[in-house]
Amino acid sequence: MDHLPEMLRSQPHQPSAMGAIERCIAACYDCAQTCTSCADACMSEKDPAMLVYCMRLDLDCADIATATGRIVSRLTKPNRALTEAALEACIIACGACGDECREHAEMHAHCRICAEACDACAEACQSLLDAMQ
Amino acid sequence: MDHLPEMLRSQPHQPSAMGAIERCIAACYDCAQTCTSCADACMSEKDPAMLVYCMRLDLDCADIATATGRIVSRLTKPNRALTEAALEACIIACGACGDECREHAEMHAHCRICAEACDACAEACQSLLDAMQ
Amino acid sequence: MDHLPEMLRSQPHQPSAMGAIERCIAACYDCAQTCTSCADACMSEKDPAMLVYCMRLDLDCADIATATGRIVSRLTKPNRALTEAALEACIIACGACGDECREHAEMHAHCRICAEACDACAEACQSLLDAMQ
Amino acid sequence: MDHLPEMLRSQPHQPSAMGAIERCIAACYDCAQTCTSCADACMSEKDPAMLVYCMRLDLDCADIATATGRIVSRLTKPNRALTEAALEACIIACGACGDECREHAEMHAHCRICAEACDACAEACQSLLDAMQ
Repeated sequence: MDHLPEMLRSQPHQPSAMGAIERCIAACYDCAQTCTSCADACMSEKDPAMLVYCMRLDLDCADIATATGRIVSRLTKPNRALTEAALEACIIACGACGDECREHAEMHAHCRICAEACDACAEACQSLLDAMQ
Repeated sequence: MDHLPEMLRSQPHQPSAMGAIERCIAACYDCAQTCTSCADACMSEKDPAMLVYCMRLDLDCADIATATGRIVSRLTKPNRALTEAALEACIIACGACGDECREHAEMHAHCRICAEACDACAEACQSLLDAMQ
Repeated sequence: MDHLPEMLRSQPHQPSAMGAIERCIAACYDCAQTCTSCADACMSEKDPAMLVYCMRLDLDCADIATATGRIVSRLTKPNRALTEAALEACIIACGACGDECREHAEMHAHCRICAEACDACAEACQSLLDAMQ
Repeated sequence: MDHLPEMLRSQPHQPSAMGAIERCIAACYDCAQTCTSCADACMSEKDPAMLVYCMRLDLDCADIATATGRIVSRLTKPNRALTEAALEACIIACGACGDECREHAEMHAHCRICAEACDACAEACQSLLDAMQ
């Protein structure tokens, strides 16, 4: 996300939680990419039938993290309840996906890395929720 | 969604709430499209500055409804907490977007129709939440 | 897509190709949903390793059809080259995904239905390309 | 994209163009975020009616870059024609959005930064196309 810090500094609205917003956006896009890669890697493993729940959660988590990253990127007239609900859904998705990926972390490095990205995303979303209070 | 009913009947998993699932998927994709169209129509109105909050909520709601429609479409090993959180976020987004669109419903037909699609989506998501209990 | 016809009639811009636009939007959202469902159904089959290429193309096609459906939904100041490139990418994705799904059509009804939705989407995109000339 | 390099090194498939793939994925997600932010910033400017074409192209480009970033992230059994069509559509979208943003670059820093991200994304997509030959 080379252009993210400069892009946020150029925004007409400069909310007080901008530091937490920047970290949350970066973590959501990173998590969305990592979950997309993990679902694809699971498909290529010798026995993908063992990894069905992992793939399924990867796809869900990629979709929610993508939506959340877009919503948090918008600084114009945010709706607090909507933003909070998106962040909460993202935290739950990252928790579910990260927990499942951790089960396969010793066997598959892509699952270990995906769990780390999910944890980082959940933490960044929670930090933004806290900063919004 | 011409192929939706037949597609769901062909799925290996046939959950008991399939009727509610079908209506929820259809409503999410319909709402995602309607919100995308409403944001675009608002941009073309003579004074888009009056419709900024409406456009912003349209974009957020389109993103959440798209993610929710995808997640509910997946019937393999669903994670209940994740699905519920997505449905709840979608209900909140549809509520916020529908309420704002209703403010402009007399002036702009696209806002009236978008509010109807948001209401229908929120109801379908709530019905699925109820059916999951 | 219950609200699509009325939503398009309410738009400030009424391009001459509106009939082709409406069919294209409906087909793109239908195809995006069908491909999402087919990828999920493939995951649940007894031997998902046999369906890896099908799942992969389902995911790609769902992503392109979603993007194309959104782009075609926007009627404000469209960029012709951009719209054409999206439609062409969608036609190629639908062709690849439909061809692969047809290979499994006798074994898996979800692949047969997905191939039909991909064909319908490719045709609707091509018809819009033709109408734009 | 903190986890991208490690995630790609952990993939079961290691295509020869991995360097170009990594740069393309990073540039697509960066461009998708930047375009989402630019559309939002345009909405908040004093006269958004002056920036309608810019907002429209930002939204289109964000959608195509998101789809392309996901498709290029998948290394399992890629379909060459599909990947090329997505990359070509992304190059055209980045070209159109970058050109329009450049028109407002002196007035609005977010447009200047968005044009830079679009240029970087178009270059990374072209480099991957070249590496695929």
